[in-house]
Amino acid sequence: MSVPAGQHTVRRHNLALVLGVVAGPEPLSRAGVAARTGLTRGTVSSLVEELIEARLVTELAAARGGPGRPASPLRLDPRGPAGLGLEVGVDTVGACVVDLGGTLRVRRTVASDHRDDVPDAALARLAALAADVVTETGLPIAGATVALPGVVGPDGVLERAPNLPRWVDVAVGPALSTRLGGLPVRAGNEADLAALAERWAGGPPDAVVVSGGIGVGAGILLDGTLFAGAGGRAGEIGHVVVDPDGATCHCGGRGCLETVAGWESLTADRPDAVRAAGRALGIALSGAVHLLDVPAVVLGGGYPRCGPLLLDAVRAELEARVLTRAGVEVRFSALGPEAALQGAATAVVQEVLADPGALIARP
Amino acid sequence: MSVPAGQHTVRRHNLALVLGVVAGPEPLSRAGVAARTGLTRGTVSSLVEELIEARLVTELAAARGGPGRPASPLRLDPRGPAGLGLEVGVDTVGACVVDLGGTLRVRRTVASDHRDDVPDAALARLAALAADVVTETGLPIAGATVALPGVVGPDGVLERAPNLPRWVDVAVGPALSTRLGGLPVRAGNEADLAALAERWAGGPPDAVVVSGGIGVGAGILLDGTLFAGAGGRAGEIGHVVVDPDGATCHCGGRGCLETVAGWESLTADRPDAVRAAGRALGIALSGAVHLLDVPAVVLGGGYPRCGPLLLDAVRAELEARVLTRAGVEVRFSALGPEAALQGAATAVVQEVLADPGALIARP
Repeated sequence: MSVPAGQHTVRRHNLALVLGVVAGPEPLSRAGVAARTGLTRGTVSSLVEELIEARLVTELAAARGGPGRPASPLRLDPRGPAGLGLEVGVDTVGACVVDLGGTLRVRRTVASDHRDDVPDAALARLAALAADVVTETGLPIAGATVALPGVVGPDGVLERAPNLPRWVDVAVGPALSTRLGGLPVRAGNEADLAALAERWAGGPPDAVVVSGGIGVGAGILLDGTLFAGAGGRAGEIGHVVVDPDGATCHCGGRGCLETVAGWESLTADRPDAVRAAGRALGIALSGAVHLLDVPAVVLGGGYPRCGPLLLDAVRAELEARVLTRAGVEVRFSALGPEAALQGAATAVVQEVLADPGALIARP
Repeated sequence: MSVPAGQHTVRRHNLALVLGVVAGPEPLSRAGVAARTGLTRGTVSSLVEELIEARLVTELAAARGGPGRPASPLRLDPRGPAGLGLEVGVDTVGACVVDLGGTLRVRRTVASDHRDDVPDAALARLAALAADVVTETGLPIAGATVALPGVVGPDGVLERAPNLPRWVDVAVGPALSTRLGGLPVRAGNEADLAALAERWAGGPPDAVVVSGGIGVGAGILLDGTLFAGAGGRAGEIGHVVVDPDGATCHCGGRGCLETVAGWESLTADRPDAVRAAGRALGIALSGAVHLLDVPAVVLGGGYPRCGPLLLDAVRAELEARVLTRAGVEVRFSALGPEAALQGAATAVVQEVLADPGALIARP
């Protein structure tokens, strides 16, 4: 018997609704979910069964507590479909697995210099690392996202990575998917994924999140979501000019932020280098604040290693240059240099939570 | 007899739908409007009568043309409620009236230097000028928008104008409204209103529209609408840094774009000044393009007076500095230095067209 399309849509919507309530902070039984969503107990039970069968939800043993406590609380199944995060860095590859509850289960980063390399060898290395971490966790994998250190178009193609001159117009997602037995693999800019990770870890909803590495990028958060700009490639703060007659950048320009505040110029234990990087970051960020009117800046990637000297230099520069009175909050990321990798895995989990029906419908 | 709220909402929606179709390029009769909107002829006639009574629509005499031509074409009433545009410049005030069909009916700009002035005298001068242009056109006025040369908050308050040090936190809209007999007056940043004017005149949907005057600002268009940023004050390109150790700016910063490409530094008939301004614009705009990923730049305000020398300098700088391959289209505005004033008046007309019911419902 076929089901009308409208019913499919409503059921898919309700699956997401129930899963969203189960993912919330409060443990709820089936009855609690019904009360919270306004669905009938019968509907909730049928949806919960479907979510349990897909290993998205698990039902704990009945609690023996006092009156009012839920009898059999539901929660996200930690053995359920997980997200695989992948990363091609300039001189590393990384892979990690984040489970449905958002817990990082395993993470591996290994040295792999791609500056003079063609993509093939790196992608083979990354696929092998991915297979290792998947085997190690033993979890089913819902999909993967790969973080890339360059300009990623809306179609997921790595168009250009100034620090990887031989990577031009590389369809990294499909190439990795083939090597991973057809697993769906999306691609995103590493700074964008780091910014999302920052937000999912409780960071500010409106912020420029700068990712400092060999390259410097930013993810721009507006109202809690990524700002893509007109063409989908917004946030390339590393190529904002901070010294018009400065050093030549890998991108071909001159005096880009990256030439002063990228990891190849910045030596974390040399105070003069840190001050110069802080000043350059402050100059570029004052431009970003004027253009985007954002109230907060998060410095991630390798920057937290530079300590308060960097933070003070950035703050001083912003204070001297920013027009609006409210001031700009500047802080370090608490996530460390692997934020992008973790964001890549969490992006998969977030997508499953937002539309579990899509996963269930897969053959 | 009272009408249920739902019916009010539907009627208001349908009034806008009918007016939108009438405002389109093709002349349509009542029957044509019915065919285009899917509403019944009876409903269309009743809505059209209401729009005629409000002087928003007029019905032309029946055409005697061949078969298939509309019998009595409807069009926007050029004698209907018009938009009043107002502007406080750094050293001018301006007022204009744009009729319902979008035609500029009268425009006046007079010298009025506000650099050392408190707001009161300027607002009295502007209100008198406004009364003059309204009398001259003889049209009913639906409302006004005032363009301001500084940071305008989402609540319409002029928070700060670096070139008008005595204008701090001025509620310009209410002050003008009082002087204009209670006419609704909104306030907007002049560069934002100039960018909207550019779009309404057929400009690109995704662009940074730079407004060059004593101050330099930009309106950012994304998908045809103004990008407000997180706090509603986006686009302050005049204070993007182009020379970290450059001249002190009125804002308190150093080496802002405005110090090189503002009208006080830029002398349109001195080639070296024009080249320096073009280079500075290119540096600041390359930052904007990297952060916002916009494919087009429009140079408005006084910049078109500088001619191809400026355009070439901006283009050369962008070409040398922009990372993405697609390139950035750069052109002069065709609207001239009064784009903001015209945009302010057109904003009122656009609002009437988008929701005529709001105007009709006014006491």
